[in-house]
Amino acid sequence: MKKSPLQIARGKYAPKLPKALQAEVKVVLGEKTESVRDQEAIKELFPNTYGLPKLTFEVNEGVKEEQKPINVGVILSGGQAPGGHNVIAGIFDGVKKIHKDGKLYGFLMGPDGLVKHNYIELTDEIIDEYRNTGGFDIIGSGRTKLEETEQYDKGLEIIKKLAIDALVIIGGDDSNTNAAVLAEYYKSINAPVQVIGCPKTIDGDLKNEQIETSFGFDTATKVYSEVIGNIQRDCNSARKYWHFIKLMGRSASHIALECALQVQPNIAIVSEEVEAKNMSLDDVVTYIAEIVAKRAAKGENFGTVLIPEGLIEFVPAMKALIAELNDFLAHNEEEFKAVPSNEQREYIISKLSADNSKLYASLPATVARQLSLDRDPHGNVQVSLIETEKLLGEMVGTKLAQWKEEGKYVGKFSPLSHFFGYEGRCATPSNFDADYCYALGRTAACLISAGVTGYMSSVQNLTAPAEEWIAGGIPTTMMMNMERRHGEMKPVIQKALVELDGKPFQYFASKRQEWAENTCYIYPGPIQYFGTPELCDQPSETLKLEQSK
Amino acid sequence: MKKSPLQIARGKYAPKLPKALQAEVKVVLGEKTESVRDQEAIKELFPNTYGLPKLTFEVNEGVKEEQKPINVGVILSGGQAPGGHNVIAGIFDGVKKIHKDGKLYGFLMGPDGLVKHNYIELTDEIIDEYRNTGGFDIIGSGRTKLEETEQYDKGLEIIKKLAIDALVIIGGDDSNTNAAVLAEYYKSINAPVQVIGCPKTIDGDLKNEQIETSFGFDTATKVYSEVIGNIQRDCNSARKYWHFIKLMGRSASHIALECALQVQPNIAIVSEEVEAKNMSLDDVVTYIAEIVAKRAAKGENFGTVLIPEGLIEFVPAMKALIAELNDFLAHNEEEFKAVPSNEQREYIISKLSADNSKLYASLPATVARQLSLDRDPHGNVQVSLIETEKLLGEMVGTKLAQWKEEGKYVGKFSPLSHFFGYEGRCATPSNFDADYCYALGRTAACLISAGVTGYMSSVQNLTAPAEEWIAGGIPTTMMMNMERRHGEMKPVIQKALVELDGKPFQYFASKRQEWAENTCYIYPGPIQYFGTPELCDQPSETLKLEQSK
Repeated sequence: MKKSPLQIARGKYAPKLPKALQAEVKVVLGEKTESVRDQEAIKELFPNTYGLPKLTFEVNEGVKEEQKPINVGVILSGGQAPGGHNVIAGIFDGVKKIHKDGKLYGFLMGPDGLVKHNYIELTDEIIDEYRNTGGFDIIGSGRTKLEETEQYDKGLEIIKKLAIDALVIIGGDDSNTNAAVLAEYYKSINAPVQVIGCPKTIDGDLKNEQIETSFGFDTATKVYSEVIGNIQRDCNSARKYWHFIKLMGRSASHIALECALQVQPNIAIVSEEVEAKNMSLDDVVTYIAEIVAKRAAKGENFGTVLIPEGLIEFVPAMKALIAELNDFLAHNEEEFKAVPSNEQREYIISKLSADNSKLYASLPATVARQLSLDRDPHGNVQVSLIETEKLLGEMVGTKLAQWKEEGKYVGKFSPLSHFFGYEGRCATPSNFDADYCYALGRTAACLISAGVTGYMSSVQNLTAPAEEWIAGGIPTTMMMNMERRHGEMKPVIQKALVELDGKPFQYFASKRQEWAENTCYIYPGPIQYFGTPELCDQPSETLKLEQSK
Repeated sequence: MKKSPLQIARGKYAPKLPKALQAEVKVVLGEKTESVRDQEAIKELFPNTYGLPKLTFEVNEGVKEEQKPINVGVILSGGQAPGGHNVIAGIFDGVKKIHKDGKLYGFLMGPDGLVKHNYIELTDEIIDEYRNTGGFDIIGSGRTKLEETEQYDKGLEIIKKLAIDALVIIGGDDSNTNAAVLAEYYKSINAPVQVIGCPKTIDGDLKNEQIETSFGFDTATKVYSEVIGNIQRDCNSARKYWHFIKLMGRSASHIALECALQVQPNIAIVSEEVEAKNMSLDDVVTYIAEIVAKRAAKGENFGTVLIPEGLIEFVPAMKALIAELNDFLAHNEEEFKAVPSNEQREYIISKLSADNSKLYASLPATVARQLSLDRDPHGNVQVSLIETEKLLGEMVGTKLAQWKEEGKYVGKFSPLSHFFGYEGRCATPSNFDADYCYALGRTAACLISAGVTGYMSSVQNLTAPAEEWIAGGIPTTMMMNMERRHGEMKPVIQKALVELDGKPFQYFASKRQEWAENTCYIYPGPIQYFGTPELCDQPSETLKLEQSK
């Protein structure tokens, strides 16, 4: 297989390890833990895995104890994130360090591979092909949810057949919630298999007091910031376009916020703030248009706007409109289908409640069409298909045209739109993610060696040099609370949204006025792998601010 | 101004120089030259600047001659390309090397700055801020064409006022054509000012036997290949999407071809081939759909397609349709406007000639709408707004659905679309472009020092190490021929399209079957600036193939 020079060079990179993992480790037990909320309910649902102690690994100065070989199965769950291959390489090296006869099996195309018994044994040769590379292609990933006892039992068959001692599930908040339920189930039936989770997601919304960041966030945001920076330099050279740039991340705005901290755009929208302030779509449009007008008054008819993918769902009025549309179209499908296509818009306007009707009528034709026609197999509006970046550009243009007529605005407004997502999910991991992921994998192997289940692999102190990182394990139940999901109360890991009183948002909020009115662009450029730590090993701005004193 | 670590690190980079430019240079005169075609006509139009000799700079072993200070004006013309700042830095250093009292003026926002007398003096302090950076923001660029005697005379006023000895125009084929006309004009009126051109354009279509490549092509295609590679890794991990990726470059497909050589996609369309084979849109769609079906038969419902931005205009039938539409809508604007919007499509279908009517009717609704409604101020269809990447995805889907009904195709087809252009035009220049551009600037200063006019700065032998590059000057008339432009025969620099019998296309054509059926993706990763020459200093694949024996 033909490889690029960078693929070849990265193949030789040796990830930096926390000190404890460089030698033999000993396990240090912490205090017993409680879940973040709803302790009674969580305890009742996890009688066998609740209240376990936190674990920390330290250097073991004593003699190495002889250990038996262990067999491990690994699953990649959900969307891709840079560094997944290094987690697997870390597990592999950890398993081999415990005993050379230990084996690592990879279940193919996500949790489905466990249920359907599709797997491969990961050998030295395979692992070496994938060290420090992006992508999940080593074994593939998938979105099947492990939620049913039947799936657990099917999985147990192959686990027993292969004599697997532990499963490692690499996934986001949902997958790790399911891993915890699986751990509890296997424990409850005395199945001799441990379940360990690893925190993955470029979205950055799997983090809490225990998990400082999920892997992949660092690399993905650096790739997005590279291209946004390039667009900003173009913007500042051509001086005639407003670039509306949508960034992946439906549930939280961490990606948009991190990119804003890296590139200092003129505008960045944070969905959590829009929701907290109960802003309407028109409020968002007005906010942007005012900055466009202010810059135009200085002769600067250009700028950049970062938009989180999930924005529409955070605008309370849009959420209400979408809910009513879903409900209405589900109940009136036949009637709606009979309406001639050129009358559909008017038809919907005539059927919705007053507020929603007015909002729907104000939307550009393309978006209105997406809301009423492009529905998923469950009949729901496909919010992810809505081109928010075009919607906002168009609506800001309409508002400015109106202001121009009223004499409130003088300028030219040419919007361009971009969407970045797939460009970053499988990028070659930054040194940070390469090191962090490898350490997560090695830590997972240590947790398996320690014989525990229902834990997540944890590496902390991440703004220090890798040598000073602290490896350990966190009982997954510790991060749980009860939430309503599809009408039922479920134990789940709390999803981390952007905290409006947190340091990253507060720093952004203190600067955004200056960034809006002036042109303070930073151009991060492409990720560098070879050079000084300042150039190559920096963690995300979010992490640096969160851990700043 | 806050800078990224890479901005700071790149600020310290010293571009590698051709050997001759490291010392004092002497001018070696070549043979007298002829234009590539239409020699009589070109000679008549350029009586003062036709037939000049090629120049080469070599190391001058003799004593340095005392030189007078020279003043130079520089203009950035047209679209941004990585490395423009280094051309300017090279001119600056060259001017200062000739005599410390020489001055460099930058005309602002393109040729307009010359005509309207907007300029700044470029000082050491300014230049040092921009060394090795992307963008044209040091003085801005613009698309005003220097074509009128009145503009030339206005320009001459400020040239005389600032005692400017030479103008350097950094631009593409059109701008360099205009520079040659300007040189001829100033020479014809004995104005004491030289005019020198520099070959710029990410599109790569300004090249010929004399100019091996235009600057910016290397960096831009590396940035596009980085993100396409990332998408390919995602594609190969998720195994469920077909990514349709449109790449900037309206006139030629060099960018799409170079990216294909770098990433080995499943499919890449080359406009020049589509035109040469007289392919219809349906032929292109069928070609793609057949590969999709072939891969689906192996269970591989994923892939990548690279599409040049200008494709639509190279499909002969589409060209004819657009021409008839432009003509029809120009003559029937009032009548068309009176047609209700939901009847416009049928109206147009009823009015066009048979072939065009059929083709128009076959287009997806959104594209049909773009063709009939989105017209520029001159009433022409805005071809650049047509989302070819979506158009092809949609039409391939329609064809596959038909084949599925006929039992000829079994599989799932989910297209996603991307467009990359602005992401690459202002990227931090690769070492190749940083070195090449700086050398072009230094060479321009040598041409000025040599007293010539109507030349382009030329650096050749570009696949060798920078030290062995050959610096010199090419009379611009040498690259010219007569072409019909807006109904008139004009002397212009021949635009370089992809040559279907050239080595880059031939190599691609020999491999594409294998790339289509198998998955041979290469993942180039981000541009690296610090490391071995293999990793950091490689020229484009196009250039390597063109110069291979």
